[in-house]
Amino acid sequence: MGLYQAFQLGLLGYACQVVDVLPHIGGQCTELYPDKPIYDIPGLPRCTGRELIERLQNQIKPFEVPFHLQQQVASLAALPDGGYRVQTAQGLSFDAKGVFIAAGVGAFVPRNLSVEGLSGLGGVVHAGDSPSSPNPEPHVLIAGGDETVMPVLSEWLTRPHASLTLVHRRDKLDLPPGDQLRLDAMIRSGTLRFVTGQPVSCRSALGRVQAIELAPPEGDPITLPCDVLVQCLGLSPKLGPIADWGLDMARRQIRVNPADFSTSLPGVYAVGDVNHYPGKRKLIACGFHEATLAAYGFAERQQGGAVTLEYTTASARLHARLKV
Amino acid sequence: MGLYQAFQLGLLGYACQVVDVLPHIGGQCTELYPDKPIYDIPGLPRCTGRELIERLQNQIKPFEVPFHLQQQVASLAALPDGGYRVQTAQGLSFDAKGVFIAAGVGAFVPRNLSVEGLSGLGGVVHAGDSPSSPNPEPHVLIAGGDETVMPVLSEWLTRPHASLTLVHRRDKLDLPPGDQLRLDAMIRSGTLRFVTGQPVSCRSALGRVQAIELAPPEGDPITLPCDVLVQCLGLSPKLGPIADWGLDMARRQIRVNPADFSTSLPGVYAVGDVNHYPGKRKLIACGFHEATLAAYGFAERQQGGAVTLEYTTASARLHARLKV
Repeated sequence: MGLYQAFQLGLLGYACQVVDVLPHIGGQCTELYPDKPIYDIPGLPRCTGRELIERLQNQIKPFEVPFHLQQQVASLAALPDGGYRVQTAQGLSFDAKGVFIAAGVGAFVPRNLSVEGLSGLGGVVHAGDSPSSPNPEPHVLIAGGDETVMPVLSEWLTRPHASLTLVHRRDKLDLPPGDQLRLDAMIRSGTLRFVTGQPVSCRSALGRVQAIELAPPEGDPITLPCDVLVQCLGLSPKLGPIADWGLDMARRQIRVNPADFSTSLPGVYAVGDVNHYPGKRKLIACGFHEATLAAYGFAERQQGGAVTLEYTTASARLHARLKV
Repeated sequence: MGLYQAFQLGLLGYACQVVDVLPHIGGQCTELYPDKPIYDIPGLPRCTGRELIERLQNQIKPFEVPFHLQQQVASLAALPDGGYRVQTAQGLSFDAKGVFIAAGVGAFVPRNLSVEGLSGLGGVVHAGDSPSSPNPEPHVLIAGGDETVMPVLSEWLTRPHASLTLVHRRDKLDLPPGDQLRLDAMIRSGTLRFVTGQPVSCRSALGRVQAIELAPPEGDPITLPCDVLVQCLGLSPKLGPIADWGLDMARRQIRVNPADFSTSLPGVYAVGDVNHYPGKRKLIACGFHEATLAAYGFAERQQGGAVTLEYTTASARLHARLKV
């Protein structure tokens, strides 16, 4: 929704910069359904997430919007002029007259096992992290069944280890057939142990994980020694630092005024899945409307009064801004 | 907006019928800017009104929506089951569980001169009407400067008349160069008299117009004899019968609740330019959102509770309805 927000601001004559924690433009459309057809975008009977983003990027071209990717906005501080200083965790800083939050359902972070006391223990990591272990030949436990399981297994097969165990709540993983065959071969050859069950508790010493207790579908719990636990549980959205900015919230959404999608902080707007108001539906067609009214809300705040509606079919001023 | 309303209702599993006073599908898009590019439809960087309508027609195909064109909805009467009987001026009748008003700025009707006492007088017509006159050789006055002036002039040149006068508030009409040359030739040859001025009053006898008084840019008023007055003043939107349905209005718009775009009549919704709510902007992108929430509002009223959001990217039920 950030793209269309930039478009509506551009139409009203305001320059903006887009900051996104993801490595590519397009937010949830690119992240969640790049190749899945969407059927309910008005005027686009069938359109994938990637195609929609390409269309929107094309639409904002006239405004030459700068993008700052892999930057997570960490803090928001009010400035004396009514604007905000926006700083990212990676060190960028922007002074802005207005801030538009289009964070979707949040930033996508690797999911954790919900086992009490596990979070923060040494040796507990996600796929892609490099676990350090004081034990040169650790007991390695891989929990979960997402598409990172195979690369993690391949890596540990080349590293020294005391044992390598894959734990999943179901018998079968949701893997491509070729990967499933490779996995079956590893299990038969004894290089990998496979255990069905749900991790329910953990044991630790000196702040490091030592063992994981599993509840199998039937029978008594199993305790597995564990020096390194690699979680391969997919991604889940997390609102992140936004939750700490002092915005009035409705559960995990930002409460907005549906007349202009303003938040409880003057000059800060929220559009798309991240906001909440009576009747809210998390649909793309609704986000476009929200971004439109948020742009007008901001323009009226800047101009201190009513902003006249102009139509792109007729307005010479809009044509100049659109470079048509 | 009626088209996208039908789409959202179809997605939620409701069949609907579209009634429009215009002779073709597409409402204002087709009527006001069929060939003008629109630049602010989300995901469509450049799209004419006609193209947008074609795209929306394509999008609603799976729902096989019946259209009733050249039918003006005249009355709305509540039924005991909570629905409404909708009747058109042309004699169609529908019993519906819900009514969605997507009437735009209204129906387009020929504009009238704002001269007191003129409306309703015999001999006062619009371009396209056939004026009757008891006088076989009438004094004909053509008022205005829209694109119907030339056909009206051409017609009267072939009919008996005592005088033929064109009255316009400016020296120049907004005509294509060829038409302007033909007009200048008629004036030079004396077949047409051209007078600059603003009609300010009229004289009548036995309920028929007799003369029109003009205020020229300078000097004294001029009185022109007039048995037939043809108004060529373009079209203006008129809300029509909708104004009499007992809906809570805000000036000429229907007041709605922005949570579901319901009107003051339960089960009646209003979307697009015809409605009003805090922050309202008459933009197509906003109308799409309104139609979406109106469909959900109706569905919740019908089902007597919350309706779960489903996504067209993932829902098998929506795929079945979309026939994909």
